[in-house]
Amino acid sequence: MKIFVKGVYQTNFGELWDKSLKDLILEAGLGAMKNAKIKANEIDLVIIGNKLSGKIDGQDHLGALAAEALKIKKGFRVEAACASGGMAVYQAVQAIKAGEVKTVLVIGAEKMTDKKNGEIAKALMGAASEEERRSGLSFVGLYALMAREYMEKFGAKKEDLAEIAVKNHKHASLNPKAHFPREININTVVSSGMVAEPLGLFDCSPISDGAAAAVISNKKGRVEIVASEISNDSLGLCERKSLVELKATQKASLRAYKKAGIKAEDIDIAEVHDCFTIAEVLAYEDLGFCKKGKGYKGINKPVNLSGGLKACGHPVGATGVKQIVEVVSHLKGEAGKRQIKKAKIGLVHNVGGTGGTAVVHILKGNL
Amino acid sequence: MKIFVKGVYQTNFGELWDKSLKDLILEAGLGAMKNAKIKANEIDLVIIGNKLSGKIDGQDHLGALAAEALKIKKGFRVEAACASGGMAVYQAVQAIKAGEVKTVLVIGAEKMTDKKNGEIAKALMGAASEEERRSGLSFVGLYALMAREYMEKFGAKKEDLAEIAVKNHKHASLNPKAHFPREININTVVSSGMVAEPLGLFDCSPISDGAAAAVISNKKGRVEIVASEISNDSLGLCERKSLVELKATQKASLRAYKKAGIKAEDIDIAEVHDCFTIAEVLAYEDLGFCKKGKGYKGINKPVNLSGGLKACGHPVGATGVKQIVEVVSHLKGEAGKRQIKKAKIGLVHNVGGTGGTAVVHILKGNL
Repeated sequence: MKIFVKGVYQTNFGELWDKSLKDLILEAGLGAMKNAKIKANEIDLVIIGNKLSGKIDGQDHLGALAAEALKIKKGFRVEAACASGGMAVYQAVQAIKAGEVKTVLVIGAEKMTDKKNGEIAKALMGAASEEERRSGLSFVGLYALMAREYMEKFGAKKEDLAEIAVKNHKHASLNPKAHFPREININTVVSSGMVAEPLGLFDCSPISDGAAAAVISNKKGRVEIVASEISNDSLGLCERKSLVELKATQKASLRAYKKAGIKAEDIDIAEVHDCFTIAEVLAYEDLGFCKKGKGYKGINKPVNLSGGLKACGHPVGATGVKQIVEVVSHLKGEAGKRQIKKAKIGLVHNVGGTGGTAVVHILKGNL
Repeated sequence: MKIFVKGVYQTNFGELWDKSLKDLILEAGLGAMKNAKIKANEIDLVIIGNKLSGKIDGQDHLGALAAEALKIKKGFRVEAACASGGMAVYQAVQAIKAGEVKTVLVIGAEKMTDKKNGEIAKALMGAASEEERRSGLSFVGLYALMAREYMEKFGAKKEDLAEIAVKNHKHASLNPKAHFPREININTVVSSGMVAEPLGLFDCSPISDGAAAAVISNKKGRVEIVASEISNDSLGLCERKSLVELKATQKASLRAYKKAGIKAEDIDIAEVHDCFTIAEVLAYEDLGFCKKGKGYKGINKPVNLSGGLKACGHPVGATGVKQIVEVVSHLKGEAGKRQIKKAKIGLVHNVGGTGGTAVVHILKGNL
């Protein structure tokens, strides 16, 4: 069975203090339906990807909430830490393949900025292992451990990581929906306040509000989902043999390439999970875009044209769906100022925690 | 494609202060695998149903946690308030039908008693609407509104509701894994401390710890899942036309009967969602076991032989899976002292919130 993305939408990402989570869910859902030229009664199921709402806003049961708000027959929520959005897309594909629904609305949504940063940092640690939480580690701390190991092992410098942030801010400068749509330079990054050595403030993705949505269907569309794969690894870093690779990304992407019948070099455009600069470097390598230990030198492929998590923003449950929105927009020629030419095959890579979960989708456009 | 339950397991339900959520997940998962005579490497996917862990214990990302702990390739978590367990079973059926996995381990798990009751009552309100939370309502308050309307409309008395609690405690007295395995009488219930008029303490299900698991597969087994349906309604009561019916239950069960090719009267045994005594009465009616307004007089069908949520206990995410465990045990003749004779068709009914979500499964045994 072939599965297509019929329409997509992204809300602004940023500090959206005048919008509730429900507002964002509604805006994204209705936006994707409009883009797909489809009405609520033609949608069989709504799936919500969200990580934090129950914890920081008190609202669980978002599947029922979205079904009610959007007048869709049924719905449920999936959670896989920061990969909740990608997992929701995966679930949509599975639901259609199961044969009982034809058209699914997937919404990733998160409202984070109403709370203090410290509360959010603590809440986010729900994606890590109990031992890591008890040790007082934060996510930037965990990724800093990976970055230090990487730099020592392969000779990468802070400036190399900084290039990722500079690139993604540059991309975001062309994205009117980005949280941080301004260019920065290497000095901005390396001289920014240290958060967890070697990662400074500008090595980190921000805390954002936002939502994104996609209408996914077995009815013919211009973009096909040719592979949808998930994989897992240990929650905690200390259970892993290596700190410089994400096995879950490697496994999910290998299966996805096989399913799509393509190789990494066939990917024309990708959105990867750059929650920290080091994460994008690891993604290049684990997705097979370059060899292990070489990613910090940069690659010759357009990655994170949205601005990535770094500069477009990272409302955690929304991110995995936003990545789909971005790639689909390019494949359909609807990406505005940042449109790239002749993109036919796109990859989307969403990570939960430090790689406890990875979700990889491959999309084919210009159909 | 036919789908079967290959094995089931329930941990003790109760105040399990010496066990962590991970302990419960492990015990239930390994127990179901042993019952199914299957090993971890034969399982393709683990799905966790859980509502509160992120909120009250800080641990999200339970799919990855379970996959790691049980050495299963991949996993994710679904949440649909108190229907999270039933939703996880539904997802397992969908995943197998989608064709990419053959055998799925479903685990419902919840750890609630480490926190103060007030904190838990607040956390549970995540299943309700924002307006209900802001109004200071609790779940017993919401169900009390339904009970008052029901009593006024149909002439039911507190004693009628109390019969449900007495029956379920009697059943639980035969269930060694029940939270409250002692018989009570009508007086115990009607003279118990009032929580929200007309519902007293013994009209309410308890706050429990516990887990349950089931191995679900397309490989032939002795119990077949012949229908798996979900439905939604508004989160909040005030958006509904009637307080004395759960539309989501009605819709899900009608679809399930149709899918299974049976009628309500063909059901030999059922586990229904009796979070409060009134809820079991409504379930009788909404599932078609009797006419609307007649449920309080009791029905002639074995319901909640486990003791129900009322007396077996209600670790929220575990409940929907435990209901499957109970019915499967009877259909396989493995229900010990409370085994009923000649049960061939069983129904399982799991509700999220006040009916924002309903999940109905129909199982056929003696195959």
